[in-house]
Amino acid sequence: MRILLDVMGGDRSPKELIKGGVSSAHERNIDLLIAGDPDLIRSSFASHGEREGSRFSILPSTQVVQMADPPVRAVRDKKQSSLVLGLEALRAGDADAFVSPANTGAVVAGSIFQLGRIHGIPRPGIAVPFPTLPGRELILIDVGANSDCVADHLLHFAKMGLAYARKVLGIEKPSVGLLNIGAEEGKGNRLIRNAFDMLRQSDLPFVGNVEAHHLLTDRPADVVVCDGFVGNVFLKAVEGGVNAVTSLLRRSIRERLTAKLGALFMRGAFRKLRETLSYRSRGGAPLLGVDGAVVIAHGRSDAEAISSAIDVACREVETGLLAHLAEDARG
Amino acid sequence: MRILLDVMGGDRSPKELIKGGVSSAHERNIDLLIAGDPDLIRSSFASHGEREGSRFSILPSTQVVQMADPPVRAVRDKKQSSLVLGLEALRAGDADAFVSPANTGAVVAGSIFQLGRIHGIPRPGIAVPFPTLPGRELILIDVGANSDCVADHLLHFAKMGLAYARKVLGIEKPSVGLLNIGAEEGKGNRLIRNAFDMLRQSDLPFVGNVEAHHLLTDRPADVVVCDGFVGNVFLKAVEGGVNAVTSLLRRSIRERLTAKLGALFMRGAFRKLRETLSYRSRGGAPLLGVDGAVVIAHGRSDAEAISSAIDVACREVETGLLAHLAEDARG
Repeated sequence: MRILLDVMGGDRSPKELIKGGVSSAHERNIDLLIAGDPDLIRSSFASHGEREGSRFSILPSTQVVQMADPPVRAVRDKKQSSLVLGLEALRAGDADAFVSPANTGAVVAGSIFQLGRIHGIPRPGIAVPFPTLPGRELILIDVGANSDCVADHLLHFAKMGLAYARKVLGIEKPSVGLLNIGAEEGKGNRLIRNAFDMLRQSDLPFVGNVEAHHLLTDRPADVVVCDGFVGNVFLKAVEGGVNAVTSLLRRSIRERLTAKLGALFMRGAFRKLRETLSYRSRGGAPLLGVDGAVVIAHGRSDAEAISSAIDVACREVETGLLAHLAEDARG
Repeated sequence: MRILLDVMGGDRSPKELIKGGVSSAHERNIDLLIAGDPDLIRSSFASHGEREGSRFSILPSTQVVQMADPPVRAVRDKKQSSLVLGLEALRAGDADAFVSPANTGAVVAGSIFQLGRIHGIPRPGIAVPFPTLPGRELILIDVGANSDCVADHLLHFAKMGLAYARKVLGIEKPSVGLLNIGAEEGKGNRLIRNAFDMLRQSDLPFVGNVEAHHLLTDRPADVVVCDGFVGNVFLKAVEGGVNAVTSLLRRSIRERLTAKLGALFMRGAFRKLRETLSYRSRGGAPLLGVDGAVVIAHGRSDAEAISSAIDVACREVETGLLAHLAEDARG
């Protein structure tokens, strides 16, 4: 298997991202094609004691899509960027999957332009697998590919999320819920009420409405669907809540000697907390519905997060998810 | 000043809610009109050593709006409920403000039917003042009165939120931000892009887009506007994040002896945390834009939360907010 890693558009240095790629390649025994500035990549290889060859190859690029670039214009104007060249190479079959921590909107727009959609899927959706207290991951889709959706888009997000849960996460009979502001039928905005009706009338394993405060603590379904605007606000609001708690605790610990002592004893507990809830910095979010395996890593990804995103890409390729999605879309 | 308290529709017993009302009435030296089952109320008075009189009076009702009742039907069909009778009494001038922990949708629908909207305001909005790490409260509006909004609604939420920040919170020159999924102009769904344009063209102190993960930690504006669906998801997602962290810590503490010891030392820090972040159980959310002072308390409100909601109502009445909102709407 060969994974294509775009190392130019993230918040961290290409060197840091390459470090994650190199360690993944060894661990998983895969080939790595790295898109970016060739001099930078070669010197990073050297610093990791590696050299260009069949295991580690380079896709040279001269342009960089910046985080603040308007997505559609960026992929139209920056044809020599690692992002656009990388997606072209994926389409050409030079790699099995594409992993990028760049501008999310640009990865989405570029993927639609270069790879196209899977036949029968109206809109691709970004799926985020995030940890929950009961243990197993929950798939939330869409978290930002589409700000304006109609009910049919959510129905297809549900189908794709279920295929992902079944094939990649190995959940035999996954269920899907609709993110809403109340549990009862009839709640929500027009989009959500329409989506509720479509989901109920479908043959999907629909469990009804689920509320935002239950997702992490109760895991009310294996897959939860929403429009990309709401999904994005949800993820960032959870992050805000988690950050607020940890900042407040840190502040109290600094201020009081007894708390400082207590924190020493609780070090293991805090580490466990970080590991369980760090869904933003770890892992990768597969972009489902485009005709290629694309995994979006967080912009702030470090080496460890990139390794984890490459894992997500490998699992998608190994399980042949793309073919399953195409089959479900036909069915 | 006389506050009308609806004690029938909350999750807790009327007795618990009356306890909060009675202690508030003494603390703030105000009169209390309690809407609900008269026998229940009288026996609660007795258990608190109070009796019916000019300080504590009763508005007898025979029906109860349940949490799961469809809002519009409930206020149409249950004319003898504490909710409907209470709002009628507010309109008739028997009280200065109405406080209820009942079915939020029913309080909104009932308020629109019984009190009407302030002239010039297209939709009322629920404003939630919630604590932030920098210390001062931030006003988020709307958090659930309107699931489907147009940009003009958000413009009026901004005006009302700013009036609240100025008059009730005493912030001399409050600013307003738009809840969005990115900081740059052009981000978001159609509604939000339209609202951005309207806010920028207005003479309001608009600071631009603000993102969900910054609200609690950075307090990027005094007032933040969004549609009621997104605002409701935001609040519940933050609650979910906070609950997940605290549950995980609690679990780790139970599992390890050292963590248990640490938690003892950190007791003060945990208490501080609860006090700072308990915005759902404490306080009340004013329903702005209807022609009367209505404060929605959380359904799970206990005596302390009811006291706090009564505080919110008193501050609204004392500062003459209603007249300011009407004036701003004319201007």
